[in-house]
Amino acid sequence: MTAGAQERVARACLLRITEPGVVGVVRHVRAVGPVQAVEDIRRGAAIGGVDVGGLQQRALDASGDRDLEASDRLGIRLLCPGDPEWPTGLDDLAARDADCFGLWARGPVPLGLATERAVAVVGTRAATDYGLGVAAELAAGLAERDWSVVSGLAFGIDAAAHRGALAARGTTIAVLACGADVAYPRGHRSLYDEIVATGLVVSEHPPGAAPQRSRFLVRNRLIAALAAGTVVVEAAPRSGARSTARHAGDLFRHVMAVPGPVTSTLSAGCHQLLRDRPDAVLVTTTDEVLELVGPMGEFAARASGPVRRRDLLGPTVSRVLDAVPVVRAAPLSRIATTAGMRVEAVAAALAALAVHDLVAETDAGWAMTRLGRQERHAAPPDRDRELELGWW
Amino acid sequence: MTAGAQERVARACLLRITEPGVVGVVRHVRAVGPVQAVEDIRRGAAIGGVDVGGLQQRALDASGDRDLEASDRLGIRLLCPGDPEWPTGLDDLAARDADCFGLWARGPVPLGLATERAVAVVGTRAATDYGLGVAAELAAGLAERDWSVVSGLAFGIDAAAHRGALAARGTTIAVLACGADVAYPRGHRSLYDEIVATGLVVSEHPPGAAPQRSRFLVRNRLIAALAAGTVVVEAAPRSGARSTARHAGDLFRHVMAVPGPVTSTLSAGCHQLLRDRPDAVLVTTTDEVLELVGPMGEFAARASGPVRRRDLLGPTVSRVLDAVPVVRAAPLSRIATTAGMRVEAVAAALAALAVHDLVAETDAGWAMTRLGRQERHAAPPDRDRELELGWW
Repeated sequence: MTAGAQERVARACLLRITEPGVVGVVRHVRAVGPVQAVEDIRRGAAIGGVDVGGLQQRALDASGDRDLEASDRLGIRLLCPGDPEWPTGLDDLAARDADCFGLWARGPVPLGLATERAVAVVGTRAATDYGLGVAAELAAGLAERDWSVVSGLAFGIDAAAHRGALAARGTTIAVLACGADVAYPRGHRSLYDEIVATGLVVSEHPPGAAPQRSRFLVRNRLIAALAAGTVVVEAAPRSGARSTARHAGDLFRHVMAVPGPVTSTLSAGCHQLLRDRPDAVLVTTTDEVLELVGPMGEFAARASGPVRRRDLLGPTVSRVLDAVPVVRAAPLSRIATTAGMRVEAVAAALAALAVHDLVAETDAGWAMTRLGRQERHAAPPDRDRELELGWW
Repeated sequence: MTAGAQERVARACLLRITEPGVVGVVRHVRAVGPVQAVEDIRRGAAIGGVDVGGLQQRALDASGDRDLEASDRLGIRLLCPGDPEWPTGLDDLAARDADCFGLWARGPVPLGLATERAVAVVGTRAATDYGLGVAAELAAGLAERDWSVVSGLAFGIDAAAHRGALAARGTTIAVLACGADVAYPRGHRSLYDEIVATGLVVSEHPPGAAPQRSRFLVRNRLIAALAAGTVVVEAAPRSGARSTARHAGDLFRHVMAVPGPVTSTLSAGCHQLLRDRPDAVLVTTTDEVLELVGPMGEFAARASGPVRRRDLLGPTVSRVLDAVPVVRAAPLSRIATTAGMRVEAVAAALAALAVHDLVAETDAGWAMTRLGRQERHAAPPDRDRELELGWW
């Protein structure tokens, strides 16, 4: 259902007053709706655990109408949940109490359509020539196959990804941590202009809003949510790109990382991801990215059907899921034996499956949840099988 | 049980007559024993599915006695299953019907001891500087921590691995696809000499035997079986190194691969391994290799961190453990001298250590058990844990 005029004004106002991803605010908005929530903030009503004073102060100066009018003059439109252009993928954020109240969008492409087939390509600002080359190549390859490239307009990998998509005349979506009218970083003014002209710049922040450090991390959840999967090209350990990858995994999106020389500290974050996350998949080409996100991308486009979590599992985790008995619980060691894998790897995979509610630990060991049983019966995605060479 | 003289002659003969890893021969030898098997081959008895004619022809010229004598003159000894020096890891090959009938060995190091802590480092002949550097670095790191490095003496990664171990004054083991006296490839004559002088060259093939193409692939199973894990450093897709990795996985050894630039075809085999094999682990440093194959790996699944018996020892007992020789037994008096402690105190400490299975009393004095060696080499338990950032 498309948002009514009153709700649009309220959502524009919320985007002005609140910072995204504050759990107390998110839950309150979900409980009472945006119109009532704005009312409550204006009159300083108690909102569980939130310092309403600050919000109330902001609300004094805020006007949804004014932001809508100003945006309109800038060619920026407000997308609200339920709008035809609203990407259903953003609704998945509710499971993390990190709802997106609305998105300001600038550019000729409808966001919902553009994200039906979208991959996020992200990475470090301090990229090497190697990383820049790989990011541009991947993005161009995705664009050539009509996949949108989502990224954050940052220096380094992000910019290379946007540029690679543009070079292939594809659609690229920049998700900003400042107003959708603010070309940040300034050095990317012409890149920003090019994206606005052919693709899409989106943001939760009202027009004119400045980028703030905390906003980048919160913004990353949108990059992850808008794409069927996130590819990290180069990343220092603990980088923002790793946070995007984590969001992607938490939202049951594909997590992918590009390897690089072990001698490069800027590939270290990618290698760490591949070592730490059982669901992270090593990718080296566009084909490998699409092999992973392809079928799921088609599937996720349908607003009605639930995405099969099973399709989102990597081969290791999937193998462990297959080894968990359907009916009763089994100890870790037995599951490892069944899977033919090392206990440590199985333990990590079970932990990942538990996060996805597919298995649960009981007194008697690991058991399959109801959801796990459902998913287990889902047909595995088609994949080429390696030619078996025999023991020699 | 150590092999008797008759069996040794028969095994030497089998190594001369048969090609390793032929299932029919392997099963027959296992069923009737080596002595009877040689008899059967000589008289052309039916051996299920094997072309006995060729073997019989070879048997006409073969003499186990002659090979043993010739080897002895070359300083090459025959290791048979059950010998004190026989590495128990080779017995795992039986599960694949790929038994090793015996090994010719040249070099001062006892093979069984050297392979108690051994990692295979293998890869392409056509290595890049990157691969050569990583292989040498990994091998040196392993050697520095008293791990043996197993490889195949080939050009490229193999040679870099051997050289890295030698540079760190470590033990390295070359497994050849030709006679243990044959320095192949010829360009590796001096490398071969250095390994023979300080480490070990081993082969299933009789002295003087030439390398053959098929023998390299069959040889790879020995490299895999002799090590706790195999690290593939650089490999073209479908390379021999990948076959070694597959053998390692089939033998329930750790399979590891070093990533590299996705733009390098010589890292493509490693990336393919990491993508295709659920049990393959991406490694970038010696620490990561040892985390997997080392004693700590056995405990990695425990959330509480590794518990080492060593940690339970008081400083006095611990000091005595450090004074017990790693390789052979020593009398009480010598251990007391090494520890710089009174004999009575050392005797009490040794008794305590024996209760913990860390040392054992033998005819030649006190010796370290396998467990004792593990505990002695165990890395300290504290490890940096990744800082958790929460959802942002």
